[in-house]
Amino acid sequence: MRISELSAHAGVSPASIKFYTREELLPAGERTGYNQTDYTQAHVDRLRLIRALIEVGGLSVAAARDVLRAIDDERMPLPHVLGEAQHAIPKRSTPARAESVQRVVAAAAERGWCVSTDNPGVELAAGVLDAYEVIGRHDLTTTLPQYAAAAELVAAADLDALDRSGSREAMAETVVVGTVLGDSLFAGLRRLAQQAETHRRYGTPENEEKKS
Amino acid sequence: MRISELSAHAGVSPASIKFYTREELLPAGERTGYNQTDYTQAHVDRLRLIRALIEVGGLSVAAARDVLRAIDDERMPLPHVLGEAQHAIPKRSTPARAESVQRVVAAAAERGWCVSTDNPGVELAAGVLDAYEVIGRHDLTTTLPQYAAAAELVAAADLDALDRSGSREAMAETVVVGTVLGDSLFAGLRRLAQQAETHRRYGTPENEEKKS
Repeated sequence: MRISELSAHAGVSPASIKFYTREELLPAGERTGYNQTDYTQAHVDRLRLIRALIEVGGLSVAAARDVLRAIDDERMPLPHVLGEAQHAIPKRSTPARAESVQRVVAAAAERGWCVSTDNPGVELAAGVLDAYEVIGRHDLTTTLPQYAAAAELVAAADLDALDRSGSREAMAETVVVGTVLGDSLFAGLRRLAQQAETHRRYGTPENEEKKS
Repeated sequence: MRISELSAHAGVSPASIKFYTREELLPAGERTGYNQTDYTQAHVDRLRLIRALIEVGGLSVAAARDVLRAIDDERMPLPHVLGEAQHAIPKRSTPARAESVQRVVAAAAERGWCVSTDNPGVELAAGVLDAYEVIGRHDLTTTLPQYAAAAELVAAADLDALDRSGSREAMAETVVVGTVLGDSLFAGLRRLAQQAETHRRYGTPENEEKKS
């Protein structure tokens, strides 16, 4: 198909298609003549994946390129693909304090997790503990293990989805998409659960007013 | 204290202090003379909170202003403060498809959650389902309830932390900080749990090599 058809099918402008090709996120189409390039359904699928990663998952173009390369590299073992997907989170400029890193590692050890200290989740979680510390809140002693128990359920769900994916390429895509989009999916459900739990414990504000 | 001392204590530049004051995130200091303003410890604490929300939580200045106003408004009931904090997530330009919204609402109903349809979590989660749909993946039938069960644990942890906070102001701050920073904390722990679960199910790539 022509670039105009590809654009219509994938919902991506021709300018963006050219940009993603230049940035090596999208393979080039086949040159079939002067100023004419032929694209296939694989290009449509790839463009939709790019949009999901960047627009919904919030990845940078560079981060999207890294994870797409991991999907495409057939010799890369799946745990490594997962590592690439896990690293596709915005990095903070200041490293977390050693004490916070230690607390995260200890929370992981308490659950019997076998993890490496360069897992990007350590810095991410430790940065949050730092922020709590700075604003004078140290009340995460109970919260941290509760969150860790919930994270275990989500990780099991992520791996279950992987087992259902089938081919190596489908599995690699599931790892990447699931890791990147899973954060947003969970954040959404967490907000619903918070409202439900608030309602369960305290009733709605309207009910409170009726009671008084 | 002078603005230079405030800057040193909070780790925020004088230019940013003036910016946050203009943007109404930080109350103005007390004018004590020509070109001289006096600040208190409350300003230090507020600046640290602002930094945590913006730099670690990733809030926009406008979103931070909204949640800080909710903290400061002593007549606002806590469930409303929670609502403000929940809304402080980046909005997408295109609304989610009705079918995806329906799937999220159904997943919430299945857990017996009492939620309003304007909860921002609905759009957030439905947007992710949309993205999955667009890339041809419909395999969230099992994942969605598993994530919802985990979200319930996290929401309970969030509300437990709230119960421990004490004063109304401390509770309001806990609601806001916990909602905004909790997403990152969970995302970090999820990455650790994923690695641990991968290791548990498949062993490390090194072990795989040794086995063969």
